[in-house]
Amino acid sequence: MTAPAQGHVADGVHHFPIRVYYEDTDAAGIVYYANYLKFAERARTEMMRCLGVEHEKIRRDAGVVLAVRRATIDHLAPARLDDELQVTTRLIAAAGATVTLAQEVRRGSDVLARLELIVACLTTSGRPRRLPPALVAALASIFRKDQHMVSEHAH
Amino acid sequence: MTAPAQGHVADGVHHFPIRVYYEDTDAAGIVYYANYLKFAERARTEMMRCLGVEHEKIRRDAGVVLAVRRATIDHLAPARLDDELQVTTRLIAAAGATVTLAQEVRRGSDVLARLELIVACLTTSGRPRRLPPALVAALASIFRKDQHMVSEHAH
Amino acid sequence: MTAPAQGHVADGVHHFPIRVYYEDTDAAGIVYYANYLKFAERARTEMMRCLGVEHEKIRRDAGVVLAVRRATIDHLAPARLDDELQVTTRLIAAAGATVTLAQEVRRGSDVLARLELIVACLTTSGRPRRLPPALVAALASIFRKDQHMVSEHAH
Amino acid sequence: MTAPAQGHVADGVHHFPIRVYYEDTDAAGIVYYANYLKFAERARTEMMRCLGVEHEKIRRDAGVVLAVRRATIDHLAPARLDDELQVTTRLIAAAGATVTLAQEVRRGSDVLARLELIVACLTTSGRPRRLPPALVAALASIFRKDQHMVSEHAH
Repeated sequence: MTAPAQGHVADGVHHFPIRVYYEDTDAAGIVYYANYLKFAERARTEMMRCLGVEHEKIRRDAGVVLAVRRATIDHLAPARLDDELQVTTRLIAAAGATVTLAQEVRRGSDVLARLELIVACLTTSGRPRRLPPALVAALASIFRKDQHMVSEHAH
Repeated sequence: MTAPAQGHVADGVHHFPIRVYYEDTDAAGIVYYANYLKFAERARTEMMRCLGVEHEKIRRDAGVVLAVRRATIDHLAPARLDDELQVTTRLIAAAGATVTLAQEVRRGSDVLARLELIVACLTTSGRPRRLPPALVAALASIFRKDQHMVSEHAH
Repeated sequence: MTAPAQGHVADGVHHFPIRVYYEDTDAAGIVYYANYLKFAERARTEMMRCLGVEHEKIRRDAGVVLAVRRATIDHLAPARLDDELQVTTRLIAAAGATVTLAQEVRRGSDVLARLELIVACLTTSGRPRRLPPALVAALASIFRKDQHMVSEHAH
Repeated sequence: MTAPAQGHVADGVHHFPIRVYYEDTDAAGIVYYANYLKFAERARTEMMRCLGVEHEKIRRDAGVVLAVRRATIDHLAPARLDDELQVTTRLIAAAGATVTLAQEVRRGSDVLARLELIVACLTTSGRPRRLPPALVAALASIFRKDQHMVSEHAH
């Protein structure tokens, strides 16, 4: 049952659509602030699935899990019920036992929230562990495209 | 910004895909029991959107909201992380101030949860109110297809 | 670290206080319908803790887990932000591999939601299993009080 | 219905107890990363309630809402099912249209998560607005105690 990953990668950025449902909103009429972290995690999971890396697979094959070590989120404007959002995910760095990602939650061209995440690679017992080479290689396949873009823009 | 509804209707049943993320699971390693109600509500919302009926639109145009009055859920088997599920929604009845729906959460051909919902049509101040004719007509467009199927099968 | 159970038992009914926070509400300005199941589960967990039965302990000692097999919820009136609610839990029956419970979510003397739950006792691999005698005995300690009440009232 | 605030203030720090339930955990067997933001918001709400400031009251009286503008969270160690946690909240600054808070989620003496939050004071239509004097005065009542502590320690 190898269901397709959602979202797509363009120019080194993963794009993932999210629809806002009642469950996501609060009594202020807007998306509850913690739920942007849920949206961001769905997008990271699908980005990984794009790379052929499922949580269970990486745990089974490499004995590691990825855990958010630090998250910073800037709330710039609220999302609302029925909104159709896009979450973008961009790789900043993957080195040692750490992946750094930048994410945005957008409605059309408006950036509603901006996140920076430091994700740690851990053994299943919680010790830091170097990123598996297969994962770095997979992430690099996005990163390289990004570099390509940068050099194209440099011309 | 009229984004397309997700899911599709076939033979009088609305089908809606759901992916299971970490946020949906609990420490027992399975989808947390209350979260099936979230999945079911997403599916109902998309079924309504298929019919051209958004929550905000119906509130604005007809001054009514739809609220679950009674929900019964049978948990038959657990869903797990990374599972790709389907939520089916079928209209049982739409009359007076009440819509009755049957929903299932499926993984492939396995039914994991079965729901029956009684949804009440309320004024924004919470009084029961007859279903708006436009909504009944929209729901009937599914129901009719279903009846059609039934009579086809009868031959 | 044996922290005290929350709530108290009176006349065979467990009472558990819940405060409504933003996370519990939705854009309709009321508590989201699935979240009553969260409130109910917190109350059941604390009722069990009152009996000296923690999830982890029962899994470790008796090799079983308790899983909701069927839940019916009637939404009678909405709860709102900052509300202070009470969840009551009453044992209906405990026999074989099944516990039946009745719960209510109340604000003062108003019943906002009424639940009936059938909870199954399962092995960790998901097979039905007779309730552990220690658990039945613990539940009976509430049930007996209740019976006592009934006979007192009968006089 | 003026229910008491939960938690207590000691030495300029608000302490609020949280119990971990199934709803808070995920399939990795630990508290889901976004849920620490829920815990933190519950604690901030109770800190405000300690000061006599409820969300609805401040919106009604002063026409303002408080919204998290920026949150940074460091995940140091995981919380688990049945854990009893403490959330501490400390005022860093309250000036202009912004309140800065430091929060920690602790299990006993272990700090599991550390948060820094910038909370903006907004009109109900989302424009920045100076903090209401009554709110600043209420917050200062904690802050002053803190200053007092500092000067005591200085001797």
